Amino acid sequence: MESRVSIITLGVADLEVSSSFYENIFGWQATGASNDNVKFYQLNGMMLSLYPKAKLAEDVGIDHEGSGFKAITLAYCTRSEEELYKMMERFRANGVTIVKDAQKVFWGGHSGYIADPDGHLWELAYNPYVSFDKNGNIA
Amino acid sequence: MESRVSIITLGVADLEVSSSFYENIFGWQATGASNDNVKFYQLNGMMLSLYPKAKLAEDVGIDHEGSGFKAITLAYCTRSEEELYKMMERFRANGVTIVKDAQKVFWGGHSGYIADPDGHLWELAYNPYVSFDKNGNIA
Repeated sequence: MESRVSIITLGVADLEVSSSFYENIFGWQATGASNDNVKFYQLNGMMLSLYPKAKLAEDVGIDHEGSGFKAITLAYCTRSEEELYKMMERFRANGVTIVKDAQKVFWGGHSGYIADPDGHLWELAYNPYVSFDKNGNIA
Repeated sequence: MESRVSIITLGVADLEVSSSFYENIFGWQATGASNDNVKFYQLNGMMLSLYPKAKLAEDVGIDHEGSGFKAITLAYCTRSEEELYKMMERFRANGVTIVKDAQKVFWGGHSGYIADPDGHLWELAYNPYVSFDKNGNIA
């Protein structure tokens, strides 16, 4: 089994609300494979997919009820400390839910958290120990 | 904001149990940045991280209680239909929780689901419409 992930699928309450969030706030563009039932976004070597939560649970074959902490977070590492704080301010100005303000944290970087319309948590972090290639891949 | 994700962090009940799962069942190797508090796995252009669920919630600044469907799934796309079914059989032989057996599905591929020790859902799928580069990146 290779060390990779191909798709992250986020279950959403309203596909239009969530795709608007990722397209207008994050500025990501849905791929041509997207339609009214599912949205795909090409990320670094993988896809992010948005799919109605109830249908995702149905696909797995389990109950769709769930509440509280999902115990999973996604992180976007910025290329500089400045970029992190600017990004957080832009999110705030756009009415995005700021779960934790960007701040210096114990591991030596800076980090904050926002929530997407369904409460999926994105950490925005500047980690001075992480290096990127030109495409934003972490190596 | 670039179209990428840097880290997926899975909150876990027992770091030793979970790291053993990803290392012995998935066959992934923890990076040198890993220690007794956190584990990192280098994936395609990003990292998978395992971190105690309560500490992850503490880092976000929210309650760690949560139950039911997490409304998020991770997918591993295989390079062939045969690889998918073999992988599923190997997981079954290793005592992994099979949530949905691999089967032909409506979108034209084959798919099944397994759960990691904390119920994080991995879809194993063969999608004939997906193409990889030599490193397993989806383009």
